Amino acid sequence: MTPLDTLVNRRHRLAAAFHRPVVLWSGQPLARNFPANTYYFRANSHFLYLVGRSLARAAIYLNQGQLTLFIDDPPAGADLWHGPEPQRQELAEAIGAIAAYPLKALPPYLAEAATLPIQDWPERLPAHDSQWHQQLALAMVETRLYHDSLAQAEMTIAARVSMAAHRAGMAATRAAQTEAQVRAAMEAVILGHNLSCAYNSIVTIQGEVLHNPHYHHALTAGDLLLADVGAESGAGWAADITRTWPVSGRFSGPQADLYAVVLAAHDACIAAARPGVEYRHLHQLACHQLACGLVDLGILKGKADDLVDRNVHTLFFPHGVGHLLGLDVHDMEDLGDLAGYGPGRRRADRFGLCFLRLDRPLAEGMAVTIEPGFYQVAALLDRARQSGQYDDAVNWQRLEDFDTVRGIRIEDDLLITADGNQVLTAELPTARATIEDLVQGH
Amino acid sequence: MTPLDTLVNRRHRLAAAFHRPVVLWSGQPLARNFPANTYYFRANSHFLYLVGRSLARAAIYLNQGQLTLFIDDPPAGADLWHGPEPQRQELAEAIGAIAAYPLKALPPYLAEAATLPIQDWPERLPAHDSQWHQQLALAMVETRLYHDSLAQAEMTIAARVSMAAHRAGMAATRAAQTEAQVRAAMEAVILGHNLSCAYNSIVTIQGEVLHNPHYHHALTAGDLLLADVGAESGAGWAADITRTWPVSGRFSGPQADLYAVVLAAHDACIAAARPGVEYRHLHQLACHQLACGLVDLGILKGKADDLVDRNVHTLFFPHGVGHLLGLDVHDMEDLGDLAGYGPGRRRADRFGLCFLRLDRPLAEGMAVTIEPGFYQVAALLDRARQSGQYDDAVNWQRLEDFDTVRGIRIEDDLLITADGNQVLTAELPTARATIEDLVQGH
Repeated sequence: MTPLDTLVNRRHRLAAAFHRPVVLWSGQPLARNFPANTYYFRANSHFLYLVGRSLARAAIYLNQGQLTLFIDDPPAGADLWHGPEPQRQELAEAIGAIAAYPLKALPPYLAEAATLPIQDWPERLPAHDSQWHQQLALAMVETRLYHDSLAQAEMTIAARVSMAAHRAGMAATRAAQTEAQVRAAMEAVILGHNLSCAYNSIVTIQGEVLHNPHYHHALTAGDLLLADVGAESGAGWAADITRTWPVSGRFSGPQADLYAVVLAAHDACIAAARPGVEYRHLHQLACHQLACGLVDLGILKGKADDLVDRNVHTLFFPHGVGHLLGLDVHDMEDLGDLAGYGPGRRRADRFGLCFLRLDRPLAEGMAVTIEPGFYQVAALLDRARQSGQYDDAVNWQRLEDFDTVRGIRIEDDLLITADGNQVLTAELPTARATIEDLVQGH
Repeated sequence: MTPLDTLVNRRHRLAAAFHRPVVLWSGQPLARNFPANTYYFRANSHFLYLVGRSLARAAIYLNQGQLTLFIDDPPAGADLWHGPEPQRQELAEAIGAIAAYPLKALPPYLAEAATLPIQDWPERLPAHDSQWHQQLALAMVETRLYHDSLAQAEMTIAARVSMAAHRAGMAATRAAQTEAQVRAAMEAVILGHNLSCAYNSIVTIQGEVLHNPHYHHALTAGDLLLADVGAESGAGWAADITRTWPVSGRFSGPQADLYAVVLAAHDACIAAARPGVEYRHLHQLACHQLACGLVDLGILKGKADDLVDRNVHTLFFPHGVGHLLGLDVHDMEDLGDLAGYGPGRRRADRFGLCFLRLDRPLAEGMAVTIEPGFYQVAALLDRARQSGQYDDAVNWQRLEDFDTVRGIRIEDDLLITADGNQVLTAELPTARATIEDLVQGH
């Protein structure tokens, strides 16, 4: 099946799930500080899914799977600045459109069509308020949830480049003075493959800050460095990988012990992931494994099941074990929880579980991340310790032996297959000794 | 003078130029594909100028130079994801605010205040339509046009890191296979200093595409690589540097000849830049120098003055010789031509001159770029040749000897000083032999 055949197939799958016409807008470059200085443009994911390329300022009209393209030809003289750009008819042929018109021809098509709200739609159009919006969103989720071979190939590319970035980051660490220098080494691999980052990289010695946006800290020999960095393929598909490694190239004893606990949870979830398994159960499995490991280390006291029932594990693992992966690193999160939470399900209020982004049974073709972690978040732990509430469950004194561990996360990307799963990021090692070797440059 | 004193001084300078209250919005992170996945946030430049740091979702109210800050405290629980963030009062002290309130307290302040339209202001506020908008914009231009020592220090940092990026790009070229790999080596230097790019890098063997956004071409030994890459300092100040170098490390004879022509124009403009000189005259000087050089090479026929009068030079140098530089790489271009064009001046209609972004007399404290170039834009040249209109002025056959030159540009950043100018980017060589040495790794 050619890439174009796959795109046509996606359009027909959407048409089978939603029986009305659809209009989707691609988005447009956003100004950074003045109109001519824009952020890197990346089309809306729903548009990308059906069109396969990041056309700016374009709309598509889909009717029974047939695509009509709306885009303006480049203005006269634009080639001086941007080089020769394809004309509308050329684009239409490349993407298998049955017709193509300038954008000004779009409005009549909007009246009867459903659409999805897109962040930078230039003006609020009638189709935004369509009664069909929710049904279209559901149909889109059903269509995008199961990845075809083209999607899998793109995600494989993103995974491969991301793995190379992580290897480069490990190799660069011992000579680096700051987080920023390791980040630079990692993103240079992604840029060098002419790809972009699927999300803002996390490269930090303060791994307990879950979405740490800073890179200014100096590296010191005793630190663990947590790097959550993923590439996006040319057609927009994401990878999402986290590794945690010692700046010195050698985990200390306590660091190695906690790394082993997180890795055991990671491995257990991957071993258990297959079609039919509830993703929520993988989360629970991770919680249980972490609790067991922390009991074994003497950090927690009691039975793992009881500790998880009491939510004690969330003191160290407050987030969910992962999320959908696809064109978006949190796939289809622009639709809120519609993709992550199956029909009739909604997020729990309970701390920890409220951050679980996915609650569906796994099925062939779905892609998810598995990313358990251990964190020492001062605000959480101080509050818990001062409350006295967990004194029977946490050995606070023993915990102090592990004070050189701020955050450890190990994250891989899984494609669910008929008989289990395929780890798209499997070639990047997780074993402690191998990680140490890579950092040491062996 | 401390940085804070300088910020306070800027506020008073603005107040002296504009006598009414002012409200400015900082902007907010923009969604890339879903709300939690945002582009790198960088506050609006007017806000940055007066506040000195990239606060997101903040507004300032200025009255007689006194600043009141409006920003919400981080929501409860945000520290789990983003780490400890400063509270409103702490920020207010750091920036010298006389008071600080949550955003919801802002509306009453808007009624009497002028503001500037900012790309991502969350909603259209009454102040946008204020009669005072144009006067505020003019006052802001007058204030920001002349760089104080803090601004100069920031631009010096941006220039220094950008020069290092260019050296890294030259050093990486011979081992690189693609434009993307050279770009990666250059941007890695910027990221490694924990800075960002001031604009989308141009790193291309198709230098004739003036704002070439592609990096996928393979490098071949006979190519010239044009790199227009600049860093932005932590407080948001830009550098803007272009160098052109041979992929092989050695300019061919024709390439060296044309490089010398562009360099002569570049050097002449820098030598001539001083307070009181019209920037438009520097543009004309560049045009004249280029025409002279092309006559010497036998590409153009006739007298340089006549050729420039007939606009023949624009066949090879269609753009302006540079622009204002400051917090924006085209400083204050969000205000259109208000900053670039002095009172009573407006862009010419004439091809070439219509792309000149700056027409003011130079004055102490202004920063500008000097960036002459030579390009062979197929569409321009084919049209000219086919028209027969330039057959007495262009030796088309001789031009073919130079067909390995697609684009050459040499760009430096100048600060105008009392007795002339200071080239902020002077430590990055322009001499052909030195460039060759750097590419060859000597």
